[in-house]
Amino acid sequence: MTNQYLDPNLKVFTLNSNKALAEEIAKVIGVELGKCSVSRFSDGEIQINIEESIRGCDVYVIQSTSSPVNENIMELLIMIDALKRASAKTINLVVPYYGYARQDRKARAREPITSKLVANLLETAGATRVITLDLHAPQIQGFFDIPTDQLMGVPILADYFKNREFSGDIVIVSPDHGGVTRARKMAERLKAPIAIIDKRRPKPNVAEVMNIVGNIEGKTAILIDDIIDTAGTITLAANALVENGAVEVLACCTHPVLSGPAIERIQNSQIKELVVTNTIALPEEKRIDKIVELSVAPLIGEAIIRVHEEQSVSTLFD
Amino acid sequence: MTNQYLDPNLKVFTLNSNKALAEEIAKVIGVELGKCSVSRFSDGEIQINIEESIRGCDVYVIQSTSSPVNENIMELLIMIDALKRASAKTINLVVPYYGYARQDRKARAREPITSKLVANLLETAGATRVITLDLHAPQIQGFFDIPTDQLMGVPILADYFKNREFSGDIVIVSPDHGGVTRARKMAERLKAPIAIIDKRRPKPNVAEVMNIVGNIEGKTAILIDDIIDTAGTITLAANALVENGAVEVLACCTHPVLSGPAIERIQNSQIKELVVTNTIALPEEKRIDKIVELSVAPLIGEAIIRVHEEQSVSTLFD
Amino acid sequence: MTNQYLDPNLKVFTLNSNKALAEEIAKVIGVELGKCSVSRFSDGEIQINIEESIRGCDVYVIQSTSSPVNENIMELLIMIDALKRASAKTINLVVPYYGYARQDRKARAREPITSKLVANLLETAGATRVITLDLHAPQIQGFFDIPTDQLMGVPILADYFKNREFSGDIVIVSPDHGGVTRARKMAERLKAPIAIIDKRRPKPNVAEVMNIVGNIEGKTAILIDDIIDTAGTITLAANALVENGAVEVLACCTHPVLSGPAIERIQNSQIKELVVTNTIALPEEKRIDKIVELSVAPLIGEAIIRVHEEQSVSTLFD
Amino acid sequence: MTNQYLDPNLKVFTLNSNKALAEEIAKVIGVELGKCSVSRFSDGEIQINIEESIRGCDVYVIQSTSSPVNENIMELLIMIDALKRASAKTINLVVPYYGYARQDRKARAREPITSKLVANLLETAGATRVITLDLHAPQIQGFFDIPTDQLMGVPILADYFKNREFSGDIVIVSPDHGGVTRARKMAERLKAPIAIIDKRRPKPNVAEVMNIVGNIEGKTAILIDDIIDTAGTITLAANALVENGAVEVLACCTHPVLSGPAIERIQNSQIKELVVTNTIALPEEKRIDKIVELSVAPLIGEAIIRVHEEQSVSTLFD
Amino acid sequence: MTNQYLDPNLKVFTLNSNKALAEEIAKVIGVELGKCSVSRFSDGEIQINIEESIRGCDVYVIQSTSSPVNENIMELLIMIDALKRASAKTINLVVPYYGYARQDRKARAREPITSKLVANLLETAGATRVITLDLHAPQIQGFFDIPTDQLMGVPILADYFKNREFSGDIVIVSPDHGGVTRARKMAERLKAPIAIIDKRRPKPNVAEVMNIVGNIEGKTAILIDDIIDTAGTITLAANALVENGAVEVLACCTHPVLSGPAIERIQNSQIKELVVTNTIALPEEKRIDKIVELSVAPLIGEAIIRVHEEQSVSTLFD
Amino acid sequence: MTNQYLDPNLKVFTLNSNKALAEEIAKVIGVELGKCSVSRFSDGEIQINIEESIRGCDVYVIQSTSSPVNENIMELLIMIDALKRASAKTINLVVPYYGYARQDRKARAREPITSKLVANLLETAGATRVITLDLHAPQIQGFFDIPTDQLMGVPILADYFKNREFSGDIVIVSPDHGGVTRARKMAERLKAPIAIIDKRRPKPNVAEVMNIVGNIEGKTAILIDDIIDTAGTITLAANALVENGAVEVLACCTHPVLSGPAIERIQNSQIKELVVTNTIALPEEKRIDKIVELSVAPLIGEAIIRVHEEQSVSTLFD
Repeated sequence: MTNQYLDPNLKVFTLNSNKALAEEIAKVIGVELGKCSVSRFSDGEIQINIEESIRGCDVYVIQSTSSPVNENIMELLIMIDALKRASAKTINLVVPYYGYARQDRKARAREPITSKLVANLLETAGATRVITLDLHAPQIQGFFDIPTDQLMGVPILADYFKNREFSGDIVIVSPDHGGVTRARKMAERLKAPIAIIDKRRPKPNVAEVMNIVGNIEGKTAILIDDIIDTAGTITLAANALVENGAVEVLACCTHPVLSGPAIERIQNSQIKELVVTNTIALPEEKRIDKIVELSVAPLIGEAIIRVHEEQSVSTLFD
Repeated sequence: MTNQYLDPNLKVFTLNSNKALAEEIAKVIGVELGKCSVSRFSDGEIQINIEESIRGCDVYVIQSTSSPVNENIMELLIMIDALKRASAKTINLVVPYYGYARQDRKARAREPITSKLVANLLETAGATRVITLDLHAPQIQGFFDIPTDQLMGVPILADYFKNREFSGDIVIVSPDHGGVTRARKMAERLKAPIAIIDKRRPKPNVAEVMNIVGNIEGKTAILIDDIIDTAGTITLAANALVENGAVEVLACCTHPVLSGPAIERIQNSQIKELVVTNTIALPEEKRIDKIVELSVAPLIGEAIIRVHEEQSVSTLFD
Repeated sequence: MTNQYLDPNLKVFTLNSNKALAEEIAKVIGVELGKCSVSRFSDGEIQINIEESIRGCDVYVIQSTSSPVNENIMELLIMIDALKRASAKTINLVVPYYGYARQDRKARAREPITSKLVANLLETAGATRVITLDLHAPQIQGFFDIPTDQLMGVPILADYFKNREFSGDIVIVSPDHGGVTRARKMAERLKAPIAIIDKRRPKPNVAEVMNIVGNIEGKTAILIDDIIDTAGTITLAANALVENGAVEVLACCTHPVLSGPAIERIQNSQIKELVVTNTIALPEEKRIDKIVELSVAPLIGEAIIRVHEEQSVSTLFD
Repeated sequence: MTNQYLDPNLKVFTLNSNKALAEEIAKVIGVELGKCSVSRFSDGEIQINIEESIRGCDVYVIQSTSSPVNENIMELLIMIDALKRASAKTINLVVPYYGYARQDRKARAREPITSKLVANLLETAGATRVITLDLHAPQIQGFFDIPTDQLMGVPILADYFKNREFSGDIVIVSPDHGGVTRARKMAERLKAPIAIIDKRRPKPNVAEVMNIVGNIEGKTAILIDDIIDTAGTITLAANALVENGAVEVLACCTHPVLSGPAIERIQNSQIKELVVTNTIALPEEKRIDKIVELSVAPLIGEAIIRVHEEQSVSTLFD
Repeated sequence: MTNQYLDPNLKVFTLNSNKALAEEIAKVIGVELGKCSVSRFSDGEIQINIEESIRGCDVYVIQSTSSPVNENIMELLIMIDALKRASAKTINLVVPYYGYARQDRKARAREPITSKLVANLLETAGATRVITLDLHAPQIQGFFDIPTDQLMGVPILADYFKNREFSGDIVIVSPDHGGVTRARKMAERLKAPIAIIDKRRPKPNVAEVMNIVGNIEGKTAILIDDIIDTAGTITLAANALVENGAVEVLACCTHPVLSGPAIERIQNSQIKELVVTNTIALPEEKRIDKIVELSVAPLIGEAIIRVHEEQSVSTLFD
Repeated sequence: MTNQYLDPNLKVFTLNSNKALAEEIAKVIGVELGKCSVSRFSDGEIQINIEESIRGCDVYVIQSTSSPVNENIMELLIMIDALKRASAKTINLVVPYYGYARQDRKARAREPITSKLVANLLETAGATRVITLDLHAPQIQGFFDIPTDQLMGVPILADYFKNREFSGDIVIVSPDHGGVTRARKMAERLKAPIAIIDKRRPKPNVAEVMNIVGNIEGKTAILIDDIIDTAGTITLAANALVENGAVEVLACCTHPVLSGPAIERIQNSQIKELVVTNTIALPEEKRIDKIVELSVAPLIGEAIIRVHEEQSVSTLFD
């Protein structure tokens, strides 16, 4: 390790969801990851052994609550309990991808609001701060009563596109109605216009139509979303864009959930390139050529240092 | 009173923000409003006298937290405290307009999330349920840990437009990037296409441009928002729509905040008609000819009855 | 259904851990299981749809937190959140097997006390009562601040043995030092003496010795534990008993976790018969001939009725 | 600024109720007031911008909850929320005048105890300490579970009178039955006897009589109260004292609420001089010649320093 | 029992502090006291056996927290815990005398506010309501966040004096500065004037002087306090009244703590008669001839019935 | 004092239960005990005067909740309240003997779980950490949500026996079924076998039989328990051991409650020597010749230093 962080009270631990990112963050900060094993008993119960004293320390626990989401949440809750009982001074959760984020409202009768539930559970267990990145809805910050620092992945994605050549003028496209504000933000950084995919069903029992609101003809379309999960919406959008005259289509997102048929759909779609960050660890079989992965480790590492040294985090985005 | 609700344990009280709506709701249910005076001491402190026993009753308190918002919130908190100490069985808040709803996230460093704060305060005081209407963001439901019932004003607005003739084909227009989903929902009820006002600043120190994404030429444009406050955005949007070829422009919203220059702006704008609901009481001087007011009292009254009788509220929207 | 429970406010729901038991309990009570689907989104997030109104109802949710334990706990937490937000009057958890029960203390430095954590999480989510069976330690009842009813499985096991013939006089054997009280209770019901397997390592780096404290020669030994997990302890104990002169060895437990090598070990051991209850669902491949399964459904069904009708539950055990 | 406080972690902010006092306190401590704007949106909602990082700082917020009391309480609550979310280390409320203090009990059926409610709200928002002055009832300290430091204004008032000449021997007079202990304390400092105004209604429908218990003839009477609000009681008392033979009447209080007819009544009364402190800001129109204002800034400034440096605050009063 | 209360869900239990009063209250209501033994283990730990099911019942627990105060508080806390875990529907504390009431403020540095602490402890344990009588300070009601009903003992005392003959005109006397409001209330009921004992020390190291403010010469003085503890203040006051010309002196209080030298002092004092209520059980040795005891059982019994039947309690005092 | 602890922020206070131990602990650490008087008012209410500033300090309060247990618990709760309101930074309870530990489960219907209740009360009052020793059940640690450090007394007892000669080979005996694990731990340290007293009643109305499971003939039996209260079980066990052929019997425990007939029973029993620690202060009349007292002060003192200096406490037991 070339640089080394001097304050021994700053401890960084990782759980199982994204160890590669955690290693990278630790390197950015200049610390070794804390000694800790997180395994399973034969019956599947989680066993946590923290193998060094953390009494009086400021502990940062790195865990995306990505798939297997329930396992990862329980690991996090149990780790918090262990840290609290072991007399950690502060317990700071670093959750690059906050799962269940889309269950943030009652869309229908008798639905849970799991995103709020998880926030309550983390606070009950003893968390004292959350650092996260591109929450699905900014209101989720309000689900917590402890301080939260929300970092932004969009600038990392935008910087990548700025340094790249395209076939035509670019247009930023929101794949659905709810993402227009996000598209607008990306468009501002790239000084580009926007368009929206206006998916709707003309009549009952008639196929949905991928209507495009805005001008995309002859342009390089960049689709942007915060999360790409099964990739249905985004690949249909890409195909519609090409059919309607876009010269090429790229896509990007902060959180590559990429579950179920996602990889196959992307492979078979008109998406030329998909740019993602490493908030969620991609297993080898998902690392297809079309996917470009950018690292959030420098951003998160810097944020942890600033939080620990009580400097402003907001100026990270000035 | 023609109909009369029989269970004496259902009590409806109103505070000062919207007494006319409360009277109307009470009539819908078939009860007299509970006896209670909410006044001010000479120094401005709130004085509440509940003038009938509510021991063991299910109490519904009607109060929009509209302007004067801080007075109205404090009235509500103090009323809850009085009801709790007077042994109410349940304390159900009926908040047709939930103020501070737009302060639902940290948009910049060191901002409060007042919308969550108010939810916490209401729960601390002793509220056991909230009934509200068209929250600015659906995630605000998750700010509460007590049961909430969110009613919908959009169907009331849509029904009004369905029964009306227009000069041309209609298009539903979102006045900003964040409202596209709402516009889409209205469009579905009216089987119409959508467009978006894409306001942006081309370069620093250059005036903002009201770009329109989508086709509005030769059409009757209906702008929709949840809240119209100073009416700057909506009136600029209306004017841009006319300049770009709309044959007429109407506007609608659930919550007519209409503060500051709003009435003057609407009066002077290309908006031909503004359709609102009575979640917020409009004072006489704001009741200009262009404004059409629809009542939410039947909806809220029915919801209160269902809650009290433990029937499904969701089926109200089937 | 022959008998039918009349009060429609009593609703019984099941989640995914033990649907067969839930069906049986519902039949005992005389109700249909509540309509509800608990599935997974493509990325593994839990999706709960409660398909009937439960406003104002007393809801009983049946879920053992057996393997997959973290999935099952998260299902339970999310269901509680959904029920709370849907205005259930009371949320009663029926947890025949309470997982993580063995993590009920800090056995070493910096260990979590997961059993308490889970109790806190369930209360935070909104549970109002817990009905459970043979907790690993009776102190776990104290981990809850809501009322708990702990039912007893030992009488069911004892009754089975009472109605059975054995080759010799019986002796009840505790397979370890911590289970002697349990063995004593079973022994009382069967009017038998006890013995203890005193496993210990004479010197470092020497194999453990299965010492037997108490007289078992020429007897039918019945080993008893609350949980049999990997079955290592119990099968070694059985073999030691035979080696030391027991004429036959049976075993019993309330909660058949039976993880990892358990079935193979039991199959290959001196255990002639293993008597268990159905608090944990046994998959087909674990249903070997040696295993006898007794049902706790009549006991739990009766307890639910008594709780609902506000009768004493303790008299169930007189 | 001549003296300058060295620890940059001590931050003092003011809200809108009493900026002049806050400036004075900041000068006493030797700090600049923190950069922060507290304004209103067009619809009256409070907008707070904290314009410097306070991460990890001990923040002191100065705000009397005087008129407009509800606005001032909401400002304080929202500021606390902003500070909490911005990671302040401690949030210390400096509330020279604690409003709603007289609503500290249920005097009649179904009254709120607003004074306790406000204490609960401040704690819920995230306050970690309260520094205040002459609470209306000392029990209000017990309404808080966070540490409170109650400073005393009576010594400041007493010192003023000690250094002043009077026409006759002085007698300290309590204007009502509840203030006798306060009068006794002032009397001890000035080595004077006491008297009480015993206002009572001899029969129903007969005017109240201002009976005087104690000897005041030929003396200089000094009336003392903690709060003077509409000044009805105190001016009637003053007139009764003169009618019963007092040679001159002065009055004093810590908190000059002075609402409604107060100034006119004082002007027209037999009160020769009214001595108050600046816990509540007096607007220009209330600054009549009869009123003498003493500053509590040195006292509060010193208290803040002691709290910050973890020295005893109680010794301030030895 | 002549009258019998019909609802079996109303259960009244007594602990050890005042069983005679509890018996009397039960008779007023028309119920048998609940079966329950509250004893001590050999080492002094409290053992509670509730010997009948209280599942779903409204339980009223009668316990004054009088001497031995710490034993009585712990009995009450443990009883609440037992009732909560045994599924009582509501747990209503009937605390005729609320001990530690005088520790309701920080009179000096680093003092506890035990009166608030006890309120917090009772709520933590699970109490849902408090019924009490003549709290030392009315603000103590605000120490609770659960509903409290404060009954008044003064009318019972006043009624007694109304039906009695006296040697002279009567004057109601407060024995100290803090009790003047109480004296005024009694005076109103008896249409009498008031006086105050103004105890003070003229100079350091000089004996305190019992100055009397108000006219008592030739009158029958009735001293009133809420609590008489060691009886020092009240007996000195009585003697001073006689020395200053009162023709006879009586005294009264709601709560006869009468600790240490109290009985001897009263016996030897100028107090002719001391009227008390039975909120605190008087042991035989304290039942001297001078003491008249009035019962609060009819008042408390009636209040319990009203609370249980959800009628107004406040009208008890109209 | 020879050694002196340098950090003035470490303050150690004692309450009344075990002042001798507190003095010894203070000496081990190298501090004077904090100045504080804990006395009783005449009516038995606890009066606490903390006579030095503890603002910002880490305070350790030493108090066993031994007999008089309710007085000692209330002293502790009130002390915590005083410390919290006086702005202590942390409030660390040092409870060498945690009373009510045996009421840690619902053994019968409608029993309290007093051990959990007390944990909740201590947290409500404001405790931030607990240091204790040999809890009756290790699960009691889980009754707390604040960090707890459980120290072990068994090694102190074992060391004593290691340095002593015996008549025969030793065997460690558990006096009941629940204590076998404890006996096994002691046996491991002394490399000895174990035996169990299997007390049971053969038939109803027949005397209990002290059956012995395991081989004790010709051996020196050492009985071990955590708590010896009335000494009934242990003395009957000792007598049974002798009758069954043990050559001598010793006994040991961590917590010598020794209530009621304990001393007489021990005196008259076959116990040759009883080894205890000083977690509970033994009054002079209980200090009989058979009892050997070992001190836990070095252990507790070292633990306090480690906690204060944020070093691992667990390594104390390596």
